[in-house]
Amino acid sequence: MNFSSENFDAVHPAMMQALVDANTGFESSYGKDSYTLAATKLFKEEFGEEIAVYFTFNGTGANNFALAAITESYQSIFCADIAHCYVDEATAPEAFSGCRLYPITTVNGKITLDGLQTQLKRKGDVHHPQANVVTLTQPTEYGTIYSLEELRAIKAFCVSNGLLLHVDGARFFNAAAALNVSLKELSEGVDVLTLGGTKLGMMYGEAVIFFASTLSSSLKFTHKRSMQLASKNRYISVQFQAILREKLWLQLANYTNHLAKCFEKEIKKLNNIQIIYPVQSNVVFLKMSKSLYLKMQSYASFYYWDEQREEARLVFSFSNTLAEIKKFVEILNEEIHSLTSNS
Amino acid sequence: MNFSSENFDAVHPAMMQALVDANTGFESSYGKDSYTLAATKLFKEEFGEEIAVYFTFNGTGANNFALAAITESYQSIFCADIAHCYVDEATAPEAFSGCRLYPITTVNGKITLDGLQTQLKRKGDVHHPQANVVTLTQPTEYGTIYSLEELRAIKAFCVSNGLLLHVDGARFFNAAAALNVSLKELSEGVDVLTLGGTKLGMMYGEAVIFFASTLSSSLKFTHKRSMQLASKNRYISVQFQAILREKLWLQLANYTNHLAKCFEKEIKKLNNIQIIYPVQSNVVFLKMSKSLYLKMQSYASFYYWDEQREEARLVFSFSNTLAEIKKFVEILNEEIHSLTSNS
Amino acid sequence: MNFSSENFDAVHPAMMQALVDANTGFESSYGKDSYTLAATKLFKEEFGEEIAVYFTFNGTGANNFALAAITESYQSIFCADIAHCYVDEATAPEAFSGCRLYPITTVNGKITLDGLQTQLKRKGDVHHPQANVVTLTQPTEYGTIYSLEELRAIKAFCVSNGLLLHVDGARFFNAAAALNVSLKELSEGVDVLTLGGTKLGMMYGEAVIFFASTLSSSLKFTHKRSMQLASKNRYISVQFQAILREKLWLQLANYTNHLAKCFEKEIKKLNNIQIIYPVQSNVVFLKMSKSLYLKMQSYASFYYWDEQREEARLVFSFSNTLAEIKKFVEILNEEIHSLTSNS
Amino acid sequence: MNFSSENFDAVHPAMMQALVDANTGFESSYGKDSYTLAATKLFKEEFGEEIAVYFTFNGTGANNFALAAITESYQSIFCADIAHCYVDEATAPEAFSGCRLYPITTVNGKITLDGLQTQLKRKGDVHHPQANVVTLTQPTEYGTIYSLEELRAIKAFCVSNGLLLHVDGARFFNAAAALNVSLKELSEGVDVLTLGGTKLGMMYGEAVIFFASTLSSSLKFTHKRSMQLASKNRYISVQFQAILREKLWLQLANYTNHLAKCFEKEIKKLNNIQIIYPVQSNVVFLKMSKSLYLKMQSYASFYYWDEQREEARLVFSFSNTLAEIKKFVEILNEEIHSLTSNS
Repeated sequence: MNFSSENFDAVHPAMMQALVDANTGFESSYGKDSYTLAATKLFKEEFGEEIAVYFTFNGTGANNFALAAITESYQSIFCADIAHCYVDEATAPEAFSGCRLYPITTVNGKITLDGLQTQLKRKGDVHHPQANVVTLTQPTEYGTIYSLEELRAIKAFCVSNGLLLHVDGARFFNAAAALNVSLKELSEGVDVLTLGGTKLGMMYGEAVIFFASTLSSSLKFTHKRSMQLASKNRYISVQFQAILREKLWLQLANYTNHLAKCFEKEIKKLNNIQIIYPVQSNVVFLKMSKSLYLKMQSYASFYYWDEQREEARLVFSFSNTLAEIKKFVEILNEEIHSLTSNS
Repeated sequence: MNFSSENFDAVHPAMMQALVDANTGFESSYGKDSYTLAATKLFKEEFGEEIAVYFTFNGTGANNFALAAITESYQSIFCADIAHCYVDEATAPEAFSGCRLYPITTVNGKITLDGLQTQLKRKGDVHHPQANVVTLTQPTEYGTIYSLEELRAIKAFCVSNGLLLHVDGARFFNAAAALNVSLKELSEGVDVLTLGGTKLGMMYGEAVIFFASTLSSSLKFTHKRSMQLASKNRYISVQFQAILREKLWLQLANYTNHLAKCFEKEIKKLNNIQIIYPVQSNVVFLKMSKSLYLKMQSYASFYYWDEQREEARLVFSFSNTLAEIKKFVEILNEEIHSLTSNS
Repeated sequence: MNFSSENFDAVHPAMMQALVDANTGFESSYGKDSYTLAATKLFKEEFGEEIAVYFTFNGTGANNFALAAITESYQSIFCADIAHCYVDEATAPEAFSGCRLYPITTVNGKITLDGLQTQLKRKGDVHHPQANVVTLTQPTEYGTIYSLEELRAIKAFCVSNGLLLHVDGARFFNAAAALNVSLKELSEGVDVLTLGGTKLGMMYGEAVIFFASTLSSSLKFTHKRSMQLASKNRYISVQFQAILREKLWLQLANYTNHLAKCFEKEIKKLNNIQIIYPVQSNVVFLKMSKSLYLKMQSYASFYYWDEQREEARLVFSFSNTLAEIKKFVEILNEEIHSLTSNS
Repeated sequence: MNFSSENFDAVHPAMMQALVDANTGFESSYGKDSYTLAATKLFKEEFGEEIAVYFTFNGTGANNFALAAITESYQSIFCADIAHCYVDEATAPEAFSGCRLYPITTVNGKITLDGLQTQLKRKGDVHHPQANVVTLTQPTEYGTIYSLEELRAIKAFCVSNGLLLHVDGARFFNAAAALNVSLKELSEGVDVLTLGGTKLGMMYGEAVIFFASTLSSSLKFTHKRSMQLASKNRYISVQFQAILREKLWLQLANYTNHLAKCFEKEIKKLNNIQIIYPVQSNVVFLKMSKSLYLKMQSYASFYYWDEQREEARLVFSFSNTLAEIKKFVEILNEEIHSLTSNS
């Protein structure tokens, strides 16, 4: 059993089929192909005609292209203190945007307005990096989801203070499915969106969507400079077509969200094991001693997220099943009792 | 007919089959998977046990990771004045290495020793960027190939002057096939090699090979920082396995080199059309008026490389055929006569 | 009266005299002059023969040259959450080092070992910026001083974890005077020291001192690249000569430290006004309402440091006098009573 | 005798006196002082009310602040192949602007229109750095001067192609004096001007002047980020006041230009020694064998500029005299004859 990450999973059959189907004849390179044209059309149907969409190889590339495209190098970016861009993208943000990243305090993985207010200071002071963007992750790295109301409040803060809003949506489809809203509704007020394809089941590829407020003739140059422009771009585009057409994304996201909910339900039946953050998408964190974690590794692969806080993370991907979940919880229950009775 | 670039071509069936075959079950992410392990083993069999190999998404990423990994930001890089990294990678080199690129005069696309000698100056002078790397493209952007002797002479220059040697091998397999040498023989004296997979027929993916002189514990960090570390890396690795196993690369490179040779032969039968650079790999440049070029676009897609010098470029990819070439030359002949008789 | 900053003060007469005296005849440029030679000799007498010393124009230049010189761009720098380099140097650190700055929790402006321990994580993990340097400010931005014991504890932490230690010593002379130790004793265990001249009374100029652990042949190139190499360097060097010769620095630092102590003593006689941080050098922070602060601006210039926490800062420079301090406290007392009786 | 560079010379007495006079009392820091206000007023009187002026420590800082302020990091800068920013500022341009520098062919040190035209290509092509600025040096590094007509032609080229015009005026005063035009006339069409103070006799300090076309609210932030904002800025400003008030600059520039002209006249009397570039400001290049150069070093210090081309450079500064020049030429004559008769 493997609950490590969607990145461990294979490519979803529908997307692999799309790749095979697209593998015929010559097409223009660097995104001038017919597949990219068609995918862009689908994106505009979902997000509105006035967007611009760019494709990247991976999430780190997508985030840093997005952030570099909307900042000047004397500015700063406010991000969650657990944000992927703050703890998991090496120093790529510095290489591309040149900006300072200031961490914002989080509750359940979500940026708080108080945290933003505290960090916001010295506007116009040349000595201090000038705040220009708030970036939040939806769902967060803890699997929690900003509600539409929370998003509106953060957007209002941004507007009041002249800040742009970027969303790292590596699992954005799961958030939209969980909230039962359209992709467009969930991106209301967003200036730039990183939309993840890989975690939904693609082989590789993400999309960066610029909304009206950030459209600019320089985007394409920044895109190329970020080394994320694929020569054979049709193979990214065609996977996104597969996701967007007939709303495959909704089916997949509902499925993995459902797995997480079922897992939560099973876990709650047990004693002695605690779910740490609200289960709102396809990611669940369990409080777990290191020894229990190591025992469980004999049966299933998943990450020990934080040694100090004893947090383990399980992520549910399209290949996972309800049967696996039931089996996992069963074994977990046995191991907990075994550890308890031994001690 | 399409002779624009290998990037316009589809994925070679063998590599697509490899992708399909690899699409089963969970594998570790970020290059810790069994396919990457196996591909690395194959690379070591080809290039020697003491190399380190890293995978990237594209050529721009590969070159800039390679160059950033072996330079300090106060240094300079000597490149051909027509090098991909000098004219086709936007300002990614500056973003990643921070170095100055100094262009070296070329003859038939190849760096000259005189050009290197002229640019080499002010060693130890703090005001001047300090030369640290010579990068050459093999085959060059004009399709020409450095002979082993030429490579040895450049290497000797590098050694004499404390410079490292990087090779941009976007079409490296074609060079090895044309010279009838092994990959290892062709990389003798090379410190870092960018080895292209996409142009040979892969969907995406390149390899960067560090030889003993440049092995360092910091390579992996620079790799990640360059935003080129794929989460589902097995899909890059498995394509390289397909290329290296049973020397598929040699078969493919021989084929496209052969197409170019046949094309050259046919062209030489005509009058009034000139091949500009020696035909040594799968790329051919023709002297061609803009009007003739535009005429030919009705029959075949290929690039008008340089307006001022009236240079058109044809590249032969694995999907191209001898029949196409004969047909193209036939039409070309007719169009030349048509243009001549009209004027 | 002006207690805003040493930067508001003029040039100390001894340093101005040194400038006038040096203004004769031709000297080599870019630090090859006889004055720089002589100043370097004095630095070696103070700090040991094995150091290398470089001169810069200002503190931001000094810190960023120092940090860039000892880091790779995939690394991170641990700094106090109130450090000058974190809140007052714009995004120059990103431009020069390319590193991530991670803020460390402070108590009385001083980095804590717990804070360091919490931030230190994921060594060897390519996704995470790799910690390489701890930078602390001595005295801190709050005027407090790390004791030799505290410094040893931080150094031990650095050694245990393979980290270098940088000290931002914009007011380093005040710290050495306050602790009654030599400059060498106070820099024990330090790998690189930014030694401030401007705040002691120089017109411009700082020194960056590299100790044995960080000596490298590339320092001079990084220095030039940081745009801090003065053409007429003799005018920086000769001011440092004036400071170091006959220990003028000790006399000046003792004087301004003494002013702060006297100020503290006077303040403690009052009721209703609180000194926020221990007074250990020439900087004092007072808890003060905005209205009181504004009243006091009629009599003296000084900074309102933090609106939210109601903190005002007074800095004592060589031109300030005991008489000014007494007068200031007297007025302050009156204004407090006036505000109290009015409310 | 010393003809190495104005950087070897001392500070001009008028500027030193200005420094001494300004050394009284407290002034606001970071350019908010009364001297900076007054100097800015003088600059506006010279260059027009609509300019913005920023001060920097040195020329490398001035050029790179100027260029970074008017470029995006995906763009390129066209500079003379002998430009200071191309051969003498290390890799500071890359650190600050992130742009590519493309060298333009020069004749007598001056950029040619043909050179510009040849380098200008691929506008709108995302793969290629996008040309945004032409920077020229006035007078050039060879001491030659662009005439107003030449400047207008380059400006017309810039306007036609959407390029900005930056002038590196490290010796700009000498050019204005030589052409007998006002500073304003000489900066007609210029978008940003680096105006050198150090080479005219200042201790340190340059000014960067932004004309209407490049005024922007972000300039001040880029300025600080370039680490060129002086805390005690009055000491830069007051020297510029001394230069601008009563046109001291004109007197000094006329004097050093005159020295060069006299030197040229004396040299032309000799046989066997050749002046290489037209003598138009205070810099003269002589064709000189290495052995002759080494002989002459016993009598006078000056640079051997280019070993291969056997070029020696003499620069005349305010401390040099006509007597020195006559003596130098006399000795030179003797040494030439001595070398000739020996051989």
